[in-house]
Amino acid sequence: MNPEGRPQAPLMSNPRADRVRDVAKLAGRPSRLKTGRYLAEGPQAVREALSAHRAAAAEGGPAVVHEVYATQGCLDRLPELADLARGVSLRLATNEVLAAMADTVSPQGIVAVCNVSTATLQDVLASGARLIAVLCEVRDPGNAGTVLRAADSAGADAVVLTASSVDIYNPKAVRSTAGSLFHLPVVTGAEFGEVMDALHAAGLTILAADGYGNVNLDRLQDLSAVRRLTPAGADGNDGDAALPQLEQPTAWLFGNEAQGLSDAELAAADHRVAVPLYGSAESLNVGTAATVCLYASARAQNG
Amino acid sequence: MNPEGRPQAPLMSNPRADRVRDVAKLAGRPSRLKTGRYLAEGPQAVREALSAHRAAAAEGGPAVVHEVYATQGCLDRLPELADLARGVSLRLATNEVLAAMADTVSPQGIVAVCNVSTATLQDVLASGARLIAVLCEVRDPGNAGTVLRAADSAGADAVVLTASSVDIYNPKAVRSTAGSLFHLPVVTGAEFGEVMDALHAAGLTILAADGYGNVNLDRLQDLSAVRRLTPAGADGNDGDAALPQLEQPTAWLFGNEAQGLSDAELAAADHRVAVPLYGSAESLNVGTAATVCLYASARAQNG
Repeated sequence: MNPEGRPQAPLMSNPRADRVRDVAKLAGRPSRLKTGRYLAEGPQAVREALSAHRAAAAEGGPAVVHEVYATQGCLDRLPELADLARGVSLRLATNEVLAAMADTVSPQGIVAVCNVSTATLQDVLASGARLIAVLCEVRDPGNAGTVLRAADSAGADAVVLTASSVDIYNPKAVRSTAGSLFHLPVVTGAEFGEVMDALHAAGLTILAADGYGNVNLDRLQDLSAVRRLTPAGADGNDGDAALPQLEQPTAWLFGNEAQGLSDAELAAADHRVAVPLYGSAESLNVGTAATVCLYASARAQNG
Repeated sequence: MNPEGRPQAPLMSNPRADRVRDVAKLAGRPSRLKTGRYLAEGPQAVREALSAHRAAAAEGGPAVVHEVYATQGCLDRLPELADLARGVSLRLATNEVLAAMADTVSPQGIVAVCNVSTATLQDVLASGARLIAVLCEVRDPGNAGTVLRAADSAGADAVVLTASSVDIYNPKAVRSTAGSLFHLPVVTGAEFGEVMDALHAAGLTILAADGYGNVNLDRLQDLSAVRRLTPAGADGNDGDAALPQLEQPTAWLFGNEAQGLSDAELAAADHRVAVPLYGSAESLNVGTAATVCLYASARAQNG
């Protein structure tokens, strides 16, 4: 028996074993699609995965973590991980086995095979979502991860990646979310048109983040601040009545890093909102633009 | 004579020539320190470098670009680059030579050897800077590039990297700035204490971006919006009088991605300002935090 009272399975020491190869294959999309699983690597990601797993279990939700592989050294160093892993299949393995499983050069002694989120947009909307980020054809894993992390920090209720966006479960994307992947529902593989229909039906205002947009984000923030802070709340002129209110339930659309949102995507939004550029930069990268937009909404909604 | 009226030098076709190796060596820090030069790769970066070069020349400033190497195919495809390069040494080279020079797999037919910025903090401050980003021990080139790009978008007057920060002229950092490196003065190699002394002497408010800060950025933004938008401008209570005003000339300190700002760095600031986290993220990455902070200042200063 190990300290957790779990029967001790034999140490995995063969980096060429079938089971090791199956885990390593999760770095590739075909294996992820076939198994519905992906790999989280390193103590930080595994800790977040296990915490999310426990929270889901407490609510009777689907399992987040399928199994964990760790070195004895890692568990000795970070005993809280073995604690968090109670009720989850945990196998001891050598450093060589961990290295063969992982995409990173050094997984720091622990990896978790996780189940792809089964969250649906319908579930998210039914629970009264007020802030959603929709990624349309974002292709770079690092950018997708940055947007997800910003959405988490801004308290967004969900992130939706349309079908043609990068696979958020690829190892680089998982890493770049720095654990935020486990903090909020992530809906993947949705068709753009269906997402728009569902958001509209739920009464969310759809704002397209667009460098050429005719609505200035600063103006929306100012109007929101005045509504929040002054008794009368009356600063605007007649034209302002047509502008979206950041306090309202909102979905933000963020587009491809090179082309931005397509004409069809822009047409589906209620408003096209520009983040102002004060300097001589030609554009914001999608991670930066998403940060500014989502924080503006979060500020207004949490006033 | 080529179309630009420049005598046609022989095509460079030997990827093992000394000159090619000297350019390639600029990917390494020793060569950059020795020569005071670095490499910008690809049409976007070279275009920005040449535009900055022309602007500097018009003002009698130091040369930004030392020399350009390009394939004939690239110049045929993007004739405006040859145009922009008038007055700069431009050598034709083969694809193989370009590939041997560049750090990227595909430099897309053009690279520029650039001179490291000679901007000093004294120059920046003498010209009346109102918004400065200071990077303290930021180590990841991608993060440094993201902060520089955010500073550019927010119209900051300069970015300062203290001596122990990443070298902004390393190829990955140059790439991640997406041209913003050429849009605003970048001061490198400065000692932290000297930077603080100069900023204080120039009357800038020094704000440390700190997740544990006791001043909430949202509160500062609200107070600023009310001052800007309401006739009386009186919303605050007595405690607010001690808070910094985002409209005032400001330098933001951003710290190491893992440890944040050190105690000594925090102590040097006038205030410690926290970007609120609305979700369950443990922290913002430095690029995201810098974006929110610099945009908050830009908004207040451009009211």
